[in-house]
Amino acid sequence: MTQDPLVIFTPSGKRGRFPVGTPVLTAARQLGVDLDSVCGGRGICSKCQVAPSYGDFPKHGVTVHEGALSDWNAVEDRYDRVRGLKPGRRLGCQATVQGDIVIDVPPESQVHRQVVRKAASTKPITMDPATRLVMVEVQEPDMHEPSGDFERLAKALKEQWQIEGVTAPLSVLQKLQPALRKGHWQVSVALHQPAGQDGMRVLDIWPGLHEGGLYGLAIDLGSTTIAAHLCDLGDGRVLASSGLMNPQIRFGEDLMSRVSYAMMNPGGDAEMTRAVREAMATLAAEIAAEGGIDPALIFEVVVVCNPVMHHLLLGIDPVELGQAPFALATSGSVTLPAAELELTSIAPTAQAYLLPCIAGHVGADAAAVALAEEPDRAEDLTLIVDVGTNAEILLGDTKGVLACSSPTGPAFEGAQISAGQRAAPGAIERVEIDPETKEPRFKVIGCDLWSTDPGFAEATRDTGVTGICGSGIIEAVAEMRMAGLLDPSGLIGGPEATGSSRCEAQGRTFAYLLHDATSAGGPRILVTQGDIRAIQLAKSALYAGARLLMDQRGVDKVDRVILAGAFGAHISPKHAMVLGMIPDAPLDKVTSAGNAAGHGARIALCNRAARSRIEQTVRKIHKVETAVEPRFQEHFVNANAIPHATDPFPELAKVAALPQIHFGASSGGGDGTGRRRRRRG
Amino acid sequence: MTQDPLVIFTPSGKRGRFPVGTPVLTAARQLGVDLDSVCGGRGICSKCQVAPSYGDFPKHGVTVHEGALSDWNAVEDRYDRVRGLKPGRRLGCQATVQGDIVIDVPPESQVHRQVVRKAASTKPITMDPATRLVMVEVQEPDMHEPSGDFERLAKALKEQWQIEGVTAPLSVLQKLQPALRKGHWQVSVALHQPAGQDGMRVLDIWPGLHEGGLYGLAIDLGSTTIAAHLCDLGDGRVLASSGLMNPQIRFGEDLMSRVSYAMMNPGGDAEMTRAVREAMATLAAEIAAEGGIDPALIFEVVVVCNPVMHHLLLGIDPVELGQAPFALATSGSVTLPAAELELTSIAPTAQAYLLPCIAGHVGADAAAVALAEEPDRAEDLTLIVDVGTNAEILLGDTKGVLACSSPTGPAFEGAQISAGQRAAPGAIERVEIDPETKEPRFKVIGCDLWSTDPGFAEATRDTGVTGICGSGIIEAVAEMRMAGLLDPSGLIGGPEATGSSRCEAQGRTFAYLLHDATSAGGPRILVTQGDIRAIQLAKSALYAGARLLMDQRGVDKVDRVILAGAFGAHISPKHAMVLGMIPDAPLDKVTSAGNAAGHGARIALCNRAARSRIEQTVRKIHKVETAVEPRFQEHFVNANAIPHATDPFPELAKVAALPQIHFGASSGGGDGTGRRRRRRG
Repeated sequence: MTQDPLVIFTPSGKRGRFPVGTPVLTAARQLGVDLDSVCGGRGICSKCQVAPSYGDFPKHGVTVHEGALSDWNAVEDRYDRVRGLKPGRRLGCQATVQGDIVIDVPPESQVHRQVVRKAASTKPITMDPATRLVMVEVQEPDMHEPSGDFERLAKALKEQWQIEGVTAPLSVLQKLQPALRKGHWQVSVALHQPAGQDGMRVLDIWPGLHEGGLYGLAIDLGSTTIAAHLCDLGDGRVLASSGLMNPQIRFGEDLMSRVSYAMMNPGGDAEMTRAVREAMATLAAEIAAEGGIDPALIFEVVVVCNPVMHHLLLGIDPVELGQAPFALATSGSVTLPAAELELTSIAPTAQAYLLPCIAGHVGADAAAVALAEEPDRAEDLTLIVDVGTNAEILLGDTKGVLACSSPTGPAFEGAQISAGQRAAPGAIERVEIDPETKEPRFKVIGCDLWSTDPGFAEATRDTGVTGICGSGIIEAVAEMRMAGLLDPSGLIGGPEATGSSRCEAQGRTFAYLLHDATSAGGPRILVTQGDIRAIQLAKSALYAGARLLMDQRGVDKVDRVILAGAFGAHISPKHAMVLGMIPDAPLDKVTSAGNAAGHGARIALCNRAARSRIEQTVRKIHKVETAVEPRFQEHFVNANAIPHATDPFPELAKVAALPQIHFGASSGGGDGTGRRRRRRG
Repeated sequence: MTQDPLVIFTPSGKRGRFPVGTPVLTAARQLGVDLDSVCGGRGICSKCQVAPSYGDFPKHGVTVHEGALSDWNAVEDRYDRVRGLKPGRRLGCQATVQGDIVIDVPPESQVHRQVVRKAASTKPITMDPATRLVMVEVQEPDMHEPSGDFERLAKALKEQWQIEGVTAPLSVLQKLQPALRKGHWQVSVALHQPAGQDGMRVLDIWPGLHEGGLYGLAIDLGSTTIAAHLCDLGDGRVLASSGLMNPQIRFGEDLMSRVSYAMMNPGGDAEMTRAVREAMATLAAEIAAEGGIDPALIFEVVVVCNPVMHHLLLGIDPVELGQAPFALATSGSVTLPAAELELTSIAPTAQAYLLPCIAGHVGADAAAVALAEEPDRAEDLTLIVDVGTNAEILLGDTKGVLACSSPTGPAFEGAQISAGQRAAPGAIERVEIDPETKEPRFKVIGCDLWSTDPGFAEATRDTGVTGICGSGIIEAVAEMRMAGLLDPSGLIGGPEATGSSRCEAQGRTFAYLLHDATSAGGPRILVTQGDIRAIQLAKSALYAGARLLMDQRGVDKVDRVILAGAFGAHISPKHAMVLGMIPDAPLDKVTSAGNAAGHGARIALCNRAARSRIEQTVRKIHKVETAVEPRFQEHFVNANAIPHATDPFPELAKVAALPQIHFGASSGGGDGTGRRRRRRG
């Protein structure tokens, strides 16, 4: 008796013998090979494309001859004619096994394909979204065995896809009968399975094969900005990324002023809820247009945000978050219909998922950072700071993770800075100051030249030089400190003391003229003493939060620092350390993770298991409440100096010399501290 | 060593020994005794009232002495002072066991108390509603062990009530924090558990003990009328029953004309959906007012209806129900938020449940009749006819159940009858005609006297005699037949043939003058030849449907007939049989079940298990499609005669003599038949 042909799949290496005539897709399914199919083997969707290999395969112990697969058939012909099939590709549902064969499953044909993000430091996302598309053939109704069209759809899903316990919302029941008849009893359905639940819910239905795709939004809802990625739930591609200002800013720049607004104004929380929901709906519509898709095909929304934004988005009065013991209404993840968040522009059945919150002041954004950066899996003791209006801080390794948040205020984002502006073309983002001449040069967003390069004026003619953004002000302050224009207490020296005419008197203090654009109709861009104080307050809060976690962990130094946050990617590690934003660490161990919270949201969007994982992880994180820790205040005061009043910075000393200068009695630090302690955001 | 005291509960007989000091409620719970409690033993809700018995109990082998329970305590004192406790009653959570004791659990203290309905023929409802109230004490938040208020509520429900997997909609999360603080960390929650599912959902929350109750609506949504019962979900009491006309009547009197309206008018289905939803919302508000409760405390709605009404209520275009193979969009039960049915006057989180449909023409109303009357558990072969604009017909016993529906039209409800009207004060509901004098006497709704009794005119002065309702026209036609005014073909005799001047000529036919109210400013109430034809068409459809099921079952007679339907209670069995509405059967085996569909809805409202049970039962019912059965037509034609052209009525012959008369060539029957076959409703 001759043996059945041997079928070997690569890259998995899974193998088995199958009778002659077995479709490749059938063999793959029986072996548990990760080969995609939406139409279930009807030769329509082309998701099951495979690449057969011919020749000798000593590693696998087989020789593959021509004819090991059945001849190209009419379905493949038609598909190739209409859509085009790459050379060497076959449709797995059409090609049948005729002899020993080695079959490669290309990445785009894998259901659980991996999506690599740009920053290579973090792990790729494995596609396993909560919402998927399948096509199914439904039995026609029979008067003598009456059953509903939906019941026959459920039966078909069970028989053809082994999917049980399917339910449908009213909107799908309303579309069901026309779709079945128009599709000649073949329909595509978008099926949603929430994490940790068995049953699946039909979110939408289309006649025949739905080719428009399914999409999701990963939204990082910050106090100041709302940023979103539009992702293809099929292959994980990011089709568009967009953002807008959080309109709640008009109710208060930081979180605590918004909580106060809610407390002082009856209905104020509802006003803020309405504002943020409208902005999110607008953003969803805009990003769909930018990505060139129908917004009604957005079926999932994942939101990460701090606790106050979380409550305001959900329509929960945040008043309890403004006073000890800072009780969250709910700390677990929240799954709900997106319609309840008034995201009216997207699919009416779309589902929203909010990551869990860690504590009253440590939100779903921190959870998302933990999901993206996985401090719980780090061998090195890792400090992660997610810099925004409110900073989320995580410290940990495989032995355990600590978390807190700290009220840095919006200075790092360019707000509360005299010439501050959003990161947009024309904004100064990089600064260098010559230690000898005290003369600056800078770069602006949207131009690759330094301001001292020939052609800079021409290149920036359209935008001009309009202000200074978050990373720009950090570099400017650090450069001023290194150039001897700023003493450790944060005082700007006058023209005599510094020898620079750019140090201009402003009342009782001085300001440093970074750029005078008046001749081009622009502003005079100064770094004022007030700007320095705002940055000092922000960086002290950040440092004090990190230091508090180090105290709890019982360490004086960390092995590694990751700068995250929407603009974390743009901060220069050296300048951050000169400023004393972060504890001293070897410079090559200070890296940037970009928008880690947003990336965490994308992971949760594309991978169901990640949702369960972060829900588990969050329960194990030890939370530290900065607002009631007496040592926070002490750390905050000591961190006011640049870089620090007491903590040594030996690693920084290796790369930067900070002049030991003193311009006079500092009036900073103390006065602002009391006010700041009441503010979050 | 002395034994622990013996505790015996009646009526269950459950017994066990418990240490001195054990609260009675604790002992009951450990033995699985059905003793209610909402507050969980805090002495607040008084649901756990018990009645201890003292003296000798030879049957139980114990003697109970004074002091077998602890002394009356302060909590009981306060409760008695504020609310009053019946003599001999104790609070089970306060009284503790001190010696051997016999404790009776009165019916009102049982969770699963039984509710007996008025008609004693059917079984009582055991209370086990899907939505129940529990009170719980929640741990206060702790900044150092941060967890959300909701997560601590879930923990308390698990620890205090063994309820796991609790979820909450946004509206509850929004109310949660103020409720917990106002209730000093004690709250009541309405918990909903759908049939066949494990998890429970919090539908609402109140500070402290919620004393306003939880309510449900059982709605029988008919083609012509919408009837509802308002029930207390705690004890099953019906607080109010109310009804109104289905406003869809303006789109067509019967079901098929409404389906046609939807087919002919784009958006017509949406118009009808809006109309019926508005009517239901109005009815819900009215019935709450009538019952004296806040409509926001209505948390459940159970709806039974025929398939066309089912689809129109759900917003599903009923077009498929108008043509073979009469495919339902969904045949299973439907559970959905009542808000999706725009029942805006009730609790925003209320849940709606629609019973399953049996087939394209046999709806959830037939399923409800099966639930109420349980033909599948009958030893006798039982025929159940639910008379309405569309008749639901069930035939079966423990060996199996058959079902069909038949398009009787609205004649039985007084529509399409010249002097027809709704059953309301002033409507003729009972009729007798003297076989000798051919003179009638009658009763009207709202008056206990016969029209020939002294004082009748005085008693009906306010309402007058305004028309004839469904049961009145049935009796009138049957009495005319028995009095020799009507021949078997349905022709009314003239004054010469009948010897009665009440038989007036109307064109080529005659009409019988039942009552002339013109002297009192009222109408002349006549039974016209057209009225007879309408009743003949309706009764033929009903009889033919029943006969078809008997054919399928292979029988010529049935053991028992149950007349159900909103006005089934008012039909006289004898008159129904004279008319030939139902097959011949011993008169004492023809009973009325009142509104069986409405009662089935009430069962499903009050008992979760009943929902699962009817979902199972429905799958086993054999469906017969009258619209495509050739024999239906034949049965219909033969049933046109009064009582019948061919079938013998031996049981009827024992109680009524029907004159063998013939007034001329009948033009009835045939002409109407063709038209009727296209109509349902």
